[in-house]
Amino acid sequence: MENVKELEFEGHLIDSMIFPKVLDTILDLDGEFEILEFRIGKKKTDTSYARIMVMGKDPGHLQRILQELHKLGAKIPDAEEVEVAPAPDDKVLPENFYVTTNHPTYINYRGKWLEVEDISMDRLIAVRNGRAECVAIDEVKKGDLIVVGEKGVRVIPPERPRQYSHFQFMGGTVSSERPNEELVEAVAREILAIKSNGGKIAVVAGPAVDHTGARDALAGMIRDGYIDLLLSGNALAVHDIEISLFGTSLGMNLETGKPVPGGNRHHLRTISKIISLGGIRKAVESGVLKDGIMYECIKNNVPFILAGSIRDDGPLPEVITDVIVAKKEIKKALRGINMVLMLSTMLHSIAVGNLLPSTVKTICVDINPATVTKLIDRGTAQAIGIVTDVGLFVPLLYEKLRSLRE
Amino acid sequence: MENVKELEFEGHLIDSMIFPKVLDTILDLDGEFEILEFRIGKKKTDTSYARIMVMGKDPGHLQRILQELHKLGAKIPDAEEVEVAPAPDDKVLPENFYVTTNHPTYINYRGKWLEVEDISMDRLIAVRNGRAECVAIDEVKKGDLIVVGEKGVRVIPPERPRQYSHFQFMGGTVSSERPNEELVEAVAREILAIKSNGGKIAVVAGPAVDHTGARDALAGMIRDGYIDLLLSGNALAVHDIEISLFGTSLGMNLETGKPVPGGNRHHLRTISKIISLGGIRKAVESGVLKDGIMYECIKNNVPFILAGSIRDDGPLPEVITDVIVAKKEIKKALRGINMVLMLSTMLHSIAVGNLLPSTVKTICVDINPATVTKLIDRGTAQAIGIVTDVGLFVPLLYEKLRSLRE
Amino acid sequence: MENVKELEFEGHLIDSMIFPKVLDTILDLDGEFEILEFRIGKKKTDTSYARIMVMGKDPGHLQRILQELHKLGAKIPDAEEVEVAPAPDDKVLPENFYVTTNHPTYINYRGKWLEVEDISMDRLIAVRNGRAECVAIDEVKKGDLIVVGEKGVRVIPPERPRQYSHFQFMGGTVSSERPNEELVEAVAREILAIKSNGGKIAVVAGPAVDHTGARDALAGMIRDGYIDLLLSGNALAVHDIEISLFGTSLGMNLETGKPVPGGNRHHLRTISKIISLGGIRKAVESGVLKDGIMYECIKNNVPFILAGSIRDDGPLPEVITDVIVAKKEIKKALRGINMVLMLSTMLHSIAVGNLLPSTVKTICVDINPATVTKLIDRGTAQAIGIVTDVGLFVPLLYEKLRSLRE
Amino acid sequence: MENVKELEFEGHLIDSMIFPKVLDTILDLDGEFEILEFRIGKKKTDTSYARIMVMGKDPGHLQRILQELHKLGAKIPDAEEVEVAPAPDDKVLPENFYVTTNHPTYINYRGKWLEVEDISMDRLIAVRNGRAECVAIDEVKKGDLIVVGEKGVRVIPPERPRQYSHFQFMGGTVSSERPNEELVEAVAREILAIKSNGGKIAVVAGPAVDHTGARDALAGMIRDGYIDLLLSGNALAVHDIEISLFGTSLGMNLETGKPVPGGNRHHLRTISKIISLGGIRKAVESGVLKDGIMYECIKNNVPFILAGSIRDDGPLPEVITDVIVAKKEIKKALRGINMVLMLSTMLHSIAVGNLLPSTVKTICVDINPATVTKLIDRGTAQAIGIVTDVGLFVPLLYEKLRSLRE
Repeated sequence: MENVKELEFEGHLIDSMIFPKVLDTILDLDGEFEILEFRIGKKKTDTSYARIMVMGKDPGHLQRILQELHKLGAKIPDAEEVEVAPAPDDKVLPENFYVTTNHPTYINYRGKWLEVEDISMDRLIAVRNGRAECVAIDEVKKGDLIVVGEKGVRVIPPERPRQYSHFQFMGGTVSSERPNEELVEAVAREILAIKSNGGKIAVVAGPAVDHTGARDALAGMIRDGYIDLLLSGNALAVHDIEISLFGTSLGMNLETGKPVPGGNRHHLRTISKIISLGGIRKAVESGVLKDGIMYECIKNNVPFILAGSIRDDGPLPEVITDVIVAKKEIKKALRGINMVLMLSTMLHSIAVGNLLPSTVKTICVDINPATVTKLIDRGTAQAIGIVTDVGLFVPLLYEKLRSLRE
Repeated sequence: MENVKELEFEGHLIDSMIFPKVLDTILDLDGEFEILEFRIGKKKTDTSYARIMVMGKDPGHLQRILQELHKLGAKIPDAEEVEVAPAPDDKVLPENFYVTTNHPTYINYRGKWLEVEDISMDRLIAVRNGRAECVAIDEVKKGDLIVVGEKGVRVIPPERPRQYSHFQFMGGTVSSERPNEELVEAVAREILAIKSNGGKIAVVAGPAVDHTGARDALAGMIRDGYIDLLLSGNALAVHDIEISLFGTSLGMNLETGKPVPGGNRHHLRTISKIISLGGIRKAVESGVLKDGIMYECIKNNVPFILAGSIRDDGPLPEVITDVIVAKKEIKKALRGINMVLMLSTMLHSIAVGNLLPSTVKTICVDINPATVTKLIDRGTAQAIGIVTDVGLFVPLLYEKLRSLRE
Repeated sequence: MENVKELEFEGHLIDSMIFPKVLDTILDLDGEFEILEFRIGKKKTDTSYARIMVMGKDPGHLQRILQELHKLGAKIPDAEEVEVAPAPDDKVLPENFYVTTNHPTYINYRGKWLEVEDISMDRLIAVRNGRAECVAIDEVKKGDLIVVGEKGVRVIPPERPRQYSHFQFMGGTVSSERPNEELVEAVAREILAIKSNGGKIAVVAGPAVDHTGARDALAGMIRDGYIDLLLSGNALAVHDIEISLFGTSLGMNLETGKPVPGGNRHHLRTISKIISLGGIRKAVESGVLKDGIMYECIKNNVPFILAGSIRDDGPLPEVITDVIVAKKEIKKALRGINMVLMLSTMLHSIAVGNLLPSTVKTICVDINPATVTKLIDRGTAQAIGIVTDVGLFVPLLYEKLRSLRE
Repeated sequence: MENVKELEFEGHLIDSMIFPKVLDTILDLDGEFEILEFRIGKKKTDTSYARIMVMGKDPGHLQRILQELHKLGAKIPDAEEVEVAPAPDDKVLPENFYVTTNHPTYINYRGKWLEVEDISMDRLIAVRNGRAECVAIDEVKKGDLIVVGEKGVRVIPPERPRQYSHFQFMGGTVSSERPNEELVEAVAREILAIKSNGGKIAVVAGPAVDHTGARDALAGMIRDGYIDLLLSGNALAVHDIEISLFGTSLGMNLETGKPVPGGNRHHLRTISKIISLGGIRKAVESGVLKDGIMYECIKNNVPFILAGSIRDDGPLPEVITDVIVAKKEIKKALRGINMVLMLSTMLHSIAVGNLLPSTVKTICVDINPATVTKLIDRGTAQAIGIVTDVGLFVPLLYEKLRSLRE
C-alpha cells in the first residue's frame, strides 16, 4: 500500500461547491494535494473535470482521507470492484464496513454497477441475490455480504438545481422572520406539482395538530387525495378520535378552549371504546367514528403507521408497540414517496428523516426554531424549514390548495 | 411603636384568592396572625369581611409585613392620613418613599380620598396642587411632596371577573399547543366589543410585522378604525416604507422571499428619501408614500410614537431619539387606552407594559414562548399571551374582524 | 337522586388554596353553594373546617360538579362504600369509571379504607385480592373490579409545606434569569438530605448528557452512590459507550469538538461490538467497556432501563423495544423512589412524570424553557424547573456534592 | 455603456469558497459568464487567479451583477478612479451611493488607494480632507463627497484561515448539544492570546449577567485586566449597584433566590442614591459603592458606555439617553478592539455587531439559540455562538483564565 492516490471528479464542481469541499477536506485532515488537471466548464450548462493527486502521511492516513472524499463523489480512475465481507453473526459487522450516505449510491459488483436500494443515511450495504440493499444493523444476518471499504462504491451527491423553483427559494436558512403567508402558497404549488406528476406525499404529524385545530384541514387534505401516507403515534390518533366522539382533545373543548368537567375521562373512554370495538378500522366500519384524520385515512384507503412510545396510554390496537417493527414498516411504506410534510413532531420527524434518501423533498413546520433547525440540518438540498404555528399553517395550506385547484 | 396591628379586608376575599394570599404573606415573612372575625359571603354575589391581628417580631418587622399586606388591599380600620415628605433634590427621593403597584390606588390626603392619576407599577406618588400623580423618578422635582410609608394609601387589587367572558377564558397560561384559530375569533370579538363601547386600542408592533407580511392587515385595521395609537420604533417604519417604495423589506422581495440584487441599498435609500422630504407626514402629503402602516396612521389621524434605539439606521425625522422623552410621550399617549395589542416586540412591549395600569387589557402575540411569558407575567388578570406566528395571526385577525362586522 | 349535596372539607383550607379552589370550581361549572359552617384555624398550625351545600341544576349537573370537588378532597359526611363494576373485557372499562389523580388516594371498601397502591395520574383503580391497585388501561383484565363514580374515594391533595426549605424556595416559576449557580448548591443539599435519610434517587437522562460533557460527572455520581436508578434510551447508552471505546460521541471528538474522519462509523462499530459481546453487562465483564455511565451502573449494581424509540440504531441488547413492556418495567422500578432528576430529555421525562405520585420530588434541567415548563406543569408542589445547560450544570452539581460531603 | 465586462479575481479562490460564490452570483442574477483564464494554486500555500467575462442582458442588468461581484473582491483589470458625488443635504444621499460591507475596503482616489476608516456594514464612504471615512447616514453633511457606484472600490473579503486554531474550530454552527465545558477553555485561551499580543477586548453585557450570578466573575475579569471596554445599558448598572448596596437584584436575594420584603423599593433607592451622589463615579469615590462590575470599571479605568432604552428607570446620570449620541460614542470606543464578548443581550449585541469590521472576533453567549443564530449570522468568519447559561459560563471562564495564567 502506498500513501498517494490519483482521483477524478466530474460535474458542476464549482458552483455546486463540490470541488472547494474536496480541497478543504484534504487540508482539514492534514493531507496534501496537487492538481494535475482542471478543466472548468466555460458556460453554466458545462460540467467541469478535475484530476488531483492526494497525499497522506502514511497509507492509513490516506485511507481516512479517501473515505471522506468518497462521499463527495471521488472516482478512482480505473474502476475497481467493490469489496465485501461476510457478517460474522446476526447484527454484527465485519471490520471496515462501509457506512452509507443518503445520496444515490452505486456499487461495482462483478463488473456491473448496481444501484443501492432504499438508500438512507448511516446504514450498510448488503449484497443479496445479486442486488445491493441498504440495511440497518439489526437487519444484518450472519453471512450477509457486507460492503467494506470505499473501493468500487460511487456516490452521486446532489447538485444544486440551477433552475430556480418555488420550492428551492425557500431552502436553507431557518428564521421566524419570514413571509410565511407566501410560503404557504409556495408549498401548496409544490404539492400540486407533485400530485399532478403522479407523485406521492407522506405526512408525519404530532398530536399538536389536534390540539391546535389543524385537524380538520389535515383530514380534508386526506379526503381530497393530497396525502398518500400518514406516519404518527398513538397520541395523534387518540386525540383525533376523542374530538370526534366527545368534541374535546385531552378534555379541552376545542371551540371554547375551556376544559370540560370530567373531560380527562374522555381520553380513557376513547381508548376503551376503540379497543372494545376492535380497533380504529372497525370503529369506522361500525359507524361509531364519523370524521377526522383517522376516519379519512380509512375511508380513503390512505395507509397509516402508528408507532408506539413510552408516553402512550392504551395504546389503540393499531399501534405498533415494538419500535423496531414499527421502524421497518415505516421504511417499507416510504418507498416511492416524493415529499414528506413534517408537522410538529420532533421524534417522528427525525426518525423518518433518517430513513429518507436525499432526493425526497421534506418540509418541516414547527413553532420551535430549534426543532426545525435540527430537522433540516441533514445535508439535503431539498429540505425546507418553516418556523410557524401549525394550527394556523395547515388550515391556510388547505384553503390555498383548494383555491389553486379551481 | 408597637409590633401588633389590626387590619380589615373586604371584598371577594375567598374566590379572588386575596385572603389566602394575605395569610400566606404573613407566614412567608415569619409573622404571626390571629383571625378576629371572619364573615364569609354565603352566595356568589356576597362579599366577605375579615378582621385579623398581625404580629411582627418588632416594629420594623411588622412594618415590612404591613407593606406587603397593603398591596393586597389591607385597610387600617381607623382611616389615617397619608404621610408625605419633600424630595430633597430633583430625581432624589425621601426616605421610606412609597412604591406604587399598577392597581387603582387612592390616598387619604387632608381628609379626602384622592385617586392617583396615571397609576403604573414601581413609581412614586407626588401630591401636586391637591392632586395625586403617579410619577417616575426622573419626573420628581426638588420639593415635590412624595408619599412615604403605607399609611393612608388604599390599593384596590383587581377581583377576578365572575362573569365568564371570551376574553377571560384565554387568560393565564402560555402554551404553543392551544387552538389559536379559535383565539383569533375571541380576540376579534373583544376588539369589536371595546370599539362598540367607544373604547380605545393601542398597538405595539415590532419590525417582524413587516417581514412576515402582517403589514397589509395591520394597515387595514388602522384604515378601518380599529386602532387608536401605534407605538413602535424606527425599524418598523423604515421597512414599512421600503415595502411601499421598493416592494422589499431589508432588500428581500416579500412576494418571492428572494433577496433583490442591490436590495440592501433600498433600506438606506428609503431613509434618505424620507429625510429629504422632511419626514413621513410630508412623504404622504407629497404623494410619495402611498400605502402601508405609516401611511394609514397619517391618513386616518392615528397618532404614532416611534422611539429610538441604538440599532437604528437614520433614523427617520419622526423618531424620538431621546428615550426619556420618548417614554414620557408614550405614557401621555396611553391615557384612556383600554386595550393594548403587543405584536412581536419584547423591548417595546415591556416598556409599554410598565406604563399601564392593571385595568388595561393586554394581548401579547409572539412566536417565542419566553417573550410571551415575560410579557404577561406582570400580575394582571387581564393579560393574554398567544404563542403564534404574527405573520399568520394578524391577517386572520383582520379577516375575522371584517367578517364579524358584516 | 337529587340535585343538592352536603360536603365537608378539612385541613389547611385557606393557605393551601384549597377552599378558594372549591368555591371557584362550583361557580365555574355554573353551580350554586351555601356555606353552612366555616371554622377557620386561628393560628398557622390550626386546620380549618368547612361544611357547604352544593346545588346543581339537575342530578347529572351536580354529579359533574362533585367529580371535580372530589379531587380537591371533598368528603361526603357519612362515609359511603366505594362502588365497583367488572371490566367487560381485557382493556375495556365499565361505564363511569373513576380516573385517578397523582395524589395519595384511599377507597372505602367493605368498611375498610384501603390505600391505592402505585398511585399515578389518569389511571384506574382495580380491587384485586382485597387490595386497591392503580392500573393503566392496558393492565385491565376482563372481570377486574374497577372503581366507578367518586363515592367512597378519598383524595389527599398535597398541602404546601409551611416550613421553608431549600427545595421549596425554588419551586414554581421557570425562568432563565435566575441565579442557577445558587440552585446547584440547593439541589446538592437536597440530594444529600434524601440520601442521608436512606432515600432513593432516579435519573432520567437524554443523550445530550453525553454530547455536552456531563457524562463524566453523572458517571461519578453513580459511582459515589447518589443514584439508585437510571432511566434512559438506546442513544444515551450508545454514545456513552462510543466515548469509552473511541473517544468520540456520534463521531465528534469531545475534547476538541472536531469531527473525527470516519467518526460516524464509530457509532455503528459501538453497536456491533456490544451486540457481538452479548450486551453491555458482558462488555463490562469482559473488560472491553471500562468507564462511563453504563459502566458505573453495572459495576455499582445500579439498575437501568433503556426504553426503545423509533429513532434507535441497533439497538443494544439491553434495550426494551416494546414500549408497553418498557413502561411497565419503569413503573415497577420507580417504587420507593423519592426524587427524580430529569436531564435534557422531554420524551422520557414526560413518560416518567406520568408514572409518579405527587409526593415524589422532581427536578427538571433543560436548556429549552418550553421543555421545562411542560415538565413541571403537572400539578405537583414538588417540582423544580431549571433552565440551564446540563453540560455545565451536572459537573458543577457533582463538584458541589463532593465538597459538601467533606 | 455596454453589457459585458472583464473581471479579475486573485487569492485562495477555491478553498475560501470565493470563486464558487462568484459564479453562483452571476447565475442567480440571470447573468452569463465565460471563464477566460483560470490558474489554480497547485499547493495549499499557492493563490489562484481567474479572469472572467460577465454578460448582462443590458447595461443596467450588468451593473447590478457587478455590484454584487464587487463585494466578493472583483477587480476591474485597469484600475479606475472612484466616483464621488456631493450629498445634496444633511443626511440625504446622492443617487447610486455605494453601500459598504464590513470587510476591509480601499478606494482609488486621485491615483492613491485609501483605506476606508472605521469600516462597518451598510454605511457610506465619505471622502473628507483626503481621507476615506465610513459614515452612517446621519453623519452625512451637505456637500460631503460620497462614493457612488462600485468603480474604484476594492473589497478584501476575509479568507478562511488555513491554520487550524482553537478559536476557529468553534466557528460556524450553533447548537445546544455541544461540549460547552471544552469551549470555555478555548475561549479562555483565545482571550489570553489576544491580551498577550497587546490586543483589546470589549464586553457587551445584558442585565441577566447580574440576575444569574455571573456578576462577580465579570467584575473579576475587569479587575484582572482582561476587559478594555464595557458596553451596556442602565439596567445592568442599576442591578449591579443594587447588589452592592442591598444584596438584591430587582429585589431578589441572590443567595437565597427569595424575594426580600420591600425589595422592589431597592431598585428605586439605588437609582435615587446614585443620582443624589452625582453618578456612579462619585459613588465609588465617596466610598458608597464598594464592589461589582461598575466599581471595577471605575477603579481600573476601564471605559464604559451605558446606552439608554425606553425600558429604563431613572436612568443613572452616566446613561446616554440620546441613542444617536450613544451609537456614535460606541463606534468611537470600538476602534482598536480585537475581540467582543457578547453576554445575554440581543439589542446591544446587534447594535455593536453592526458597528464592527469583519476582522474583529466576536463570541456570543446566550441561552436562547435564536439570539445566538441572529448574532453570528452576519457574514463573518470570526464569530462564535455558544448556546449556554451565562450564569454558569462566565464564572467557569474566569476560573479557567486564572488557572491557565498560573
